[in-house]
Amino acid sequence: MRTRKYQQLGLIGCGLMGGSFALALKKARLVRHVVGYSKSPSTTQKAYDLGVIDSQAQSALQACIGSDLILLAVPVSATADMLKNIRDYVRSDTLVMDVGSTKQDVADAARQSLGWNVQYFVPAHPVTGKESAGVAYADANLYRGARVVLTPLHETMPEKLQQAAELWTALGAHLTTMLPQEHDAVMAAVSHMPHLVAFAYINGLLAQGNAAQLLAMGGPGFRDFSRIAAGDAILWRDVLLANRTEVLAQLQHMQTALAQLQQTLENRDGVELERLIAQASKTRAQWRMRE
Amino acid sequence: MRTRKYQQLGLIGCGLMGGSFALALKKARLVRHVVGYSKSPSTTQKAYDLGVIDSQAQSALQACIGSDLILLAVPVSATADMLKNIRDYVRSDTLVMDVGSTKQDVADAARQSLGWNVQYFVPAHPVTGKESAGVAYADANLYRGARVVLTPLHETMPEKLQQAAELWTALGAHLTTMLPQEHDAVMAAVSHMPHLVAFAYINGLLAQGNAAQLLAMGGPGFRDFSRIAAGDAILWRDVLLANRTEVLAQLQHMQTALAQLQQTLENRDGVELERLIAQASKTRAQWRMRE
Repeated sequence: MRTRKYQQLGLIGCGLMGGSFALALKKARLVRHVVGYSKSPSTTQKAYDLGVIDSQAQSALQACIGSDLILLAVPVSATADMLKNIRDYVRSDTLVMDVGSTKQDVADAARQSLGWNVQYFVPAHPVTGKESAGVAYADANLYRGARVVLTPLHETMPEKLQQAAELWTALGAHLTTMLPQEHDAVMAAVSHMPHLVAFAYINGLLAQGNAAQLLAMGGPGFRDFSRIAAGDAILWRDVLLANRTEVLAQLQHMQTALAQLQQTLENRDGVELERLIAQASKTRAQWRMRE
Repeated sequence: MRTRKYQQLGLIGCGLMGGSFALALKKARLVRHVVGYSKSPSTTQKAYDLGVIDSQAQSALQACIGSDLILLAVPVSATADMLKNIRDYVRSDTLVMDVGSTKQDVADAARQSLGWNVQYFVPAHPVTGKESAGVAYADANLYRGARVVLTPLHETMPEKLQQAAELWTALGAHLTTMLPQEHDAVMAAVSHMPHLVAFAYINGLLAQGNAAQLLAMGGPGFRDFSRIAAGDAILWRDVLLANRTEVLAQLQHMQTALAQLQQTLENRDGVELERLIAQASKTRAQWRMRE
């Protein structure tokens, strides 16, 4: 399998995810030229200065002209408008992808915004990131070993899906294909709801008068459990709102299990408490991150 | 400051924590001889075979005879009985410590069980561990860089507290001294309640028909958030029961903060949601583990 090489990447959004994609493509010699656009001109300039992009576009449109690969790496809430903007600049030889953390909303937006050109669009979600956002943290190896979920629409051309799969595989990612709604349900369970809980956990500490003392005593368990609470506020606001129904459903599952544990504590029921912990402990001890 | 050297460590409980303590003392050349006892003879044998202990005791009592340093490294629920057993074998030149994760119950047990000899007892909690329990994982460097909380009783002799502090410092640990009840309140917030939530989270996934699919999709966020859910069931049953009042109080703080976030999702209130996330995110991004 020879991976298709691209003449020009039109990168819309030069942040961590987009910048890393550009660097990874360059490193793999899969693209000749990268044109980048960011809403903030200083970000576009920085991406250029860092060698992440080869030329600066003044608009999303301009980044698309002559591009046979377009990546939207903007907040999910900006995706619909951006797709509408670029609709008429997508050619039949172009592959269009996004990197958003929710997919049902992106699928809906793509259908509404891209019209006929929706067939060239392959929604993608690289399940990776860093706590530090911004192009300064862009990393050619960000996607190596990471899982990337592709959620093709029924309109997506099989040939485009194949190209997208080959491209991410060439960058070292491990692929999974799902329906958009299935993706959102799964991600609510293993990512979005845990983020919500981690945010709540930190806020619950901050609500206490001795918050500084509590935080100062956090050890390795605290560090790992709360790490995701450092996530970007705007990104997570968008993700949680976009996927609110699934997130709230997952929260219900967690709350039910928590109420069970709480009951054993209130009843001092050591036998049932041990059983419930053992069930979780055994599952988590056997779990390995799949690549 | 020259750290006191000990003739003999009487180790009661040859698991991960006790075994690591013995290895660390040996490595630092702070003890001549280690006598070990575990409830299970095969564990004592294994500790001997691994060179963690130098001789095997047939009882906790026997491990104390001739020991000027005694470490209780047994489940918190077994501590009271064990202290009662050894009461008459504690000499005035002996330093007695435990390594339990809760301290008010240990303080109460020590007062009731040790009688006059409670003055030689320094309750200790090394805030460290591994997901893998057992003497096979004992590690001479487990306490290096770890935080150790000492919670002296008002009966504890200042000289013993000083010796305990010097000993842990010599093993590379960073010391904090607190009252037992203060320790338990802080630990409920930064360790015990997060464990309860992590157990509930995994059980909430297991309650769903597609649990296997959900678990298979966990990425780095899932890995870190749920790591502590792999904790030992018996150890955590004991900790959570022993500290149930503080744990339930901390759970209430978390639930209140979670209900606030949930409300913003139900109301689609992006402004307030972003504010609540930003508050948590800023705090967590600035947090560093103190040594």
